[in-house]
Amino acid sequence: MSDPRTYTLTLSCPDRLGIVAAVSQFVTARGGWIIEANHHAEQEDNVFFMRQVILADSLNCSVAQLRAAFEPLAKSFGMTWSISDSAVKKRMVVMVSKQEHCIYDLLGRWHAGELPVDIPCVISNHETFRGLVEWHGIPFHHVPVTPENKPQAYRQVMDIFDTAQADLMVLARYMQVLSPEMCERYAGRIINIHHSFLPSFVGAKPYHQAHDRGVKLIGATCHYVTADLDQGPIIEQDVIRIDHSDLISDLVRYGKDIEKAVLARGLRFHLEDRVIVHKNKTIVFR
Amino acid sequence: MSDPRTYTLTLSCPDRLGIVAAVSQFVTARGGWIIEANHHAEQEDNVFFMRQVILADSLNCSVAQLRAAFEPLAKSFGMTWSISDSAVKKRMVVMVSKQEHCIYDLLGRWHAGELPVDIPCVISNHETFRGLVEWHGIPFHHVPVTPENKPQAYRQVMDIFDTAQADLMVLARYMQVLSPEMCERYAGRIINIHHSFLPSFVGAKPYHQAHDRGVKLIGATCHYVTADLDQGPIIEQDVIRIDHSDLISDLVRYGKDIEKAVLARGLRFHLEDRVIVHKNKTIVFR
Amino acid sequence: MSDPRTYTLTLSCPDRLGIVAAVSQFVTARGGWIIEANHHAEQEDNVFFMRQVILADSLNCSVAQLRAAFEPLAKSFGMTWSISDSAVKKRMVVMVSKQEHCIYDLLGRWHAGELPVDIPCVISNHETFRGLVEWHGIPFHHVPVTPENKPQAYRQVMDIFDTAQADLMVLARYMQVLSPEMCERYAGRIINIHHSFLPSFVGAKPYHQAHDRGVKLIGATCHYVTADLDQGPIIEQDVIRIDHSDLISDLVRYGKDIEKAVLARGLRFHLEDRVIVHKNKTIVFR
Amino acid sequence: MSDPRTYTLTLSCPDRLGIVAAVSQFVTARGGWIIEANHHAEQEDNVFFMRQVILADSLNCSVAQLRAAFEPLAKSFGMTWSISDSAVKKRMVVMVSKQEHCIYDLLGRWHAGELPVDIPCVISNHETFRGLVEWHGIPFHHVPVTPENKPQAYRQVMDIFDTAQADLMVLARYMQVLSPEMCERYAGRIINIHHSFLPSFVGAKPYHQAHDRGVKLIGATCHYVTADLDQGPIIEQDVIRIDHSDLISDLVRYGKDIEKAVLARGLRFHLEDRVIVHKNKTIVFR
Repeated sequence: MSDPRTYTLTLSCPDRLGIVAAVSQFVTARGGWIIEANHHAEQEDNVFFMRQVILADSLNCSVAQLRAAFEPLAKSFGMTWSISDSAVKKRMVVMVSKQEHCIYDLLGRWHAGELPVDIPCVISNHETFRGLVEWHGIPFHHVPVTPENKPQAYRQVMDIFDTAQADLMVLARYMQVLSPEMCERYAGRIINIHHSFLPSFVGAKPYHQAHDRGVKLIGATCHYVTADLDQGPIIEQDVIRIDHSDLISDLVRYGKDIEKAVLARGLRFHLEDRVIVHKNKTIVFR
Repeated sequence: MSDPRTYTLTLSCPDRLGIVAAVSQFVTARGGWIIEANHHAEQEDNVFFMRQVILADSLNCSVAQLRAAFEPLAKSFGMTWSISDSAVKKRMVVMVSKQEHCIYDLLGRWHAGELPVDIPCVISNHETFRGLVEWHGIPFHHVPVTPENKPQAYRQVMDIFDTAQADLMVLARYMQVLSPEMCERYAGRIINIHHSFLPSFVGAKPYHQAHDRGVKLIGATCHYVTADLDQGPIIEQDVIRIDHSDLISDLVRYGKDIEKAVLARGLRFHLEDRVIVHKNKTIVFR
Repeated sequence: MSDPRTYTLTLSCPDRLGIVAAVSQFVTARGGWIIEANHHAEQEDNVFFMRQVILADSLNCSVAQLRAAFEPLAKSFGMTWSISDSAVKKRMVVMVSKQEHCIYDLLGRWHAGELPVDIPCVISNHETFRGLVEWHGIPFHHVPVTPENKPQAYRQVMDIFDTAQADLMVLARYMQVLSPEMCERYAGRIINIHHSFLPSFVGAKPYHQAHDRGVKLIGATCHYVTADLDQGPIIEQDVIRIDHSDLISDLVRYGKDIEKAVLARGLRFHLEDRVIVHKNKTIVFR
Repeated sequence: MSDPRTYTLTLSCPDRLGIVAAVSQFVTARGGWIIEANHHAEQEDNVFFMRQVILADSLNCSVAQLRAAFEPLAKSFGMTWSISDSAVKKRMVVMVSKQEHCIYDLLGRWHAGELPVDIPCVISNHETFRGLVEWHGIPFHHVPVTPENKPQAYRQVMDIFDTAQADLMVLARYMQVLSPEMCERYAGRIINIHHSFLPSFVGAKPYHQAHDRGVKLIGATCHYVTADLDQGPIIEQDVIRIDHSDLISDLVRYGKDIEKAVLARGLRFHLEDRVIVHKNKTIVFR
């Protein structure tokens, strides 16, 4: 038994009286059965956010008709909005380097049908996972990156991404800093897993930094990538307890478990249209 | 700066199309500014649940008028509902025995104004905390309980509770099993903190049971009291890690920290009308 | 840079004065540099437990000589003991059914060299993972299990296990109850991951049980298998928060993340000789 | 039934062969029954750390004789060491300001006899808690602090501390930066609870900083105070989950629960001689 087909409406607009009434009225008038609904108002900025999941079969119109009909209402409230269709899976390009934990975890979830996602291809600066990826029937692109060829390499990555008509790029411990151009071009569409509890230990070798400072918990952070290194909007975080007896190699090992769990949770939020970016923060409707 | 006055509407009714539209329409028509909204549908039973927090100052009518106006709408949907007013604090009778941790924690929160609650009195089967309670300006009733006098003692407790016009009884490690009569009389209004992660280790000496079984985490459970011992609807739970080196006395000590934290969280949910009991479970709108 | 070779001494014996002095004297006399040391005394039973990790290169004798020399000392204290050698990896047979999460997780860790283990083969009652397992260069045995053929099927499993000269069998969501004979034959050598926070929700469909009871956290338990279903000594447990909005399918999905994490941690403890079973409990020297 | 009297030996020294053998030999020769033992070697610096808890009644000598006898052994290994006596409780001066949560928590634990500590007095820059503290029979000193009188005020605090023959000063949300002189004078004897997960959000208003950055967990840190603000050795930390709907006032409220729990755990570690400071980090033998 598979999940029923749903449409997910997400929107933000200046906060004022009657938004929920107008939207729920609109949906009800078309027979729409809402199975999830979340609201949030950012008081400081007077912005309202909303997410509604509607059973497709309950509607007396197509998704195209729904979108067309919603347009004028959205305009009158000044909404930024979208309606996604669970029958149309997002397309996610996975970027990896040589570390196993995130790519194995993602492929396992993909194989189990656990994430609502298609993976058109995996791109790596190493050949390490070609066999594993191809065994899953997923194309694998080896795009080496050196200090010298970075611009060309990243041009190639963008070509592959665009050709694949991808919606999302996930850096599954890709270990390379993307170019500002790429960050801007795919703003809100690149997700990274950083191996520290940001904003602690920005940049390189966070586990070394954590060990030096003597913290008692280490963490990982799933965030949207912006041109500002490790400063993008945070989607999800978690931590794990360590102690004085743990070597840096232990931190790395514990950290992997947190990294892959946090990445998978953050990804799911994004894939299910649960995340709305507002300034440098996220609203996550769980 | 104190919190603004709010009215909290909670309701449940058979699920059907248009509930949210009708309610939000109703609130909007009276100028009501909603600052929190949560919905939930229990699919198996086709029951819908809703909670809305409305800014009092935004309404163009009094709370009495709001309630009167809502009545016909509620009737047409078959709703069980209530509208509470943050200006009218709930009245909570605290029952204690001889253990410090929960009563200190509750008094500290009360003293800080952290919980929206009045404490008309504390009742105990021991004199242990008379001084502390009275220092806070709260009346203290000593009602000894023995196997012989239980019916009279509980009659006295109920008299005190009713005289205090209390809304809620909290068993802050009271260590006595209430009578079925009392459980029924105050159904949904007695909250207990049980010192295990229910349904594990029901009944007496749960930390001994946990030690014997060799579990690696112990917990606590905040629940509504029913005539069935430790079987009532669960409001909140949490756990803490232990290991083989911990003696039963260590489990008791760690457990106290979880007990008071879980009780305080569960209480807050109840006091803020975030909890709706459905069959033997709770919907908790966080 | 790989980890240095180590010998790990674990022992238990009746508690008395001078055990640590005698053992540390013994190790020091042979130049042994101890990099980890843990003790525990079970007071009720007057039993002492110890684990020491010695740098192989620091010793002026071979591991065989070390064992021979330790024998008389062990005898005089009535010790049950063993000395393992990190250069000799344990051999682990993995039993799977049709669920992805544990087998992907274990293969990923094995591929990364993260667990000190060899996997001589994977056994399954389904063909689902043949391709994935064989891609890793690990033999895959399909042993179908039906109500009728169980004795023969389990005989075949034991043959494969014995032929593989395996030390350990891990049930990575194998979903079949082993025979009492197998449980006894490999006592202390079969590790299971149960999808509940034991002792809650023993037996089948624990997530359904958890959903029915309305708990606010769900968990998983890694334990040694005994003939008593879900009653064996617990090695490791963990939990994750859920709420009223989660369907059983959500619990299953969240649960998988806890299951694979708890299994991996429990396995590591076992593989590094950190676990000693005492009666129906475990001492885990972390 | 109270805990048995124990002596706790803690030591650090250059790491070399035979330390454990020598010390355990020494204890065994005097009939000493060790009920807890922990070791740690800091490999980078080649320093060894040890903690042993000995049952007082098992020894054939007094604690004074034990110390005297240990002196030559300690000298030969170049040890920094101490032997504490559980019959001699540490004396802890509590510094508070106007926030309830930590002082209520500490007084509750003290009243329950849960912490092995005497509280000779409480010092505050406000009168807020005089009544509560004095009700417990503990002297209360009001020492107002203004930008102008800081040197004199801190002189007065030091006088009170010294007169009380205190071993430890705990800043239970004291909200004042101590003078470098005081930090130095009581190095390793002042414990603070900082309301962030250090090293994130150093300095003032950490919950505002956390809200601005959009983190998904907030935390608290118990640490030794040094002249470098919020940079001292960390003893204990913990976190709690928040989300986009939480206002700064919610963070403050959640944070309090973490603060008091983390402070209590860190304090216990210190009071039971489980903490050894090494450079800017702590070894915590749990």
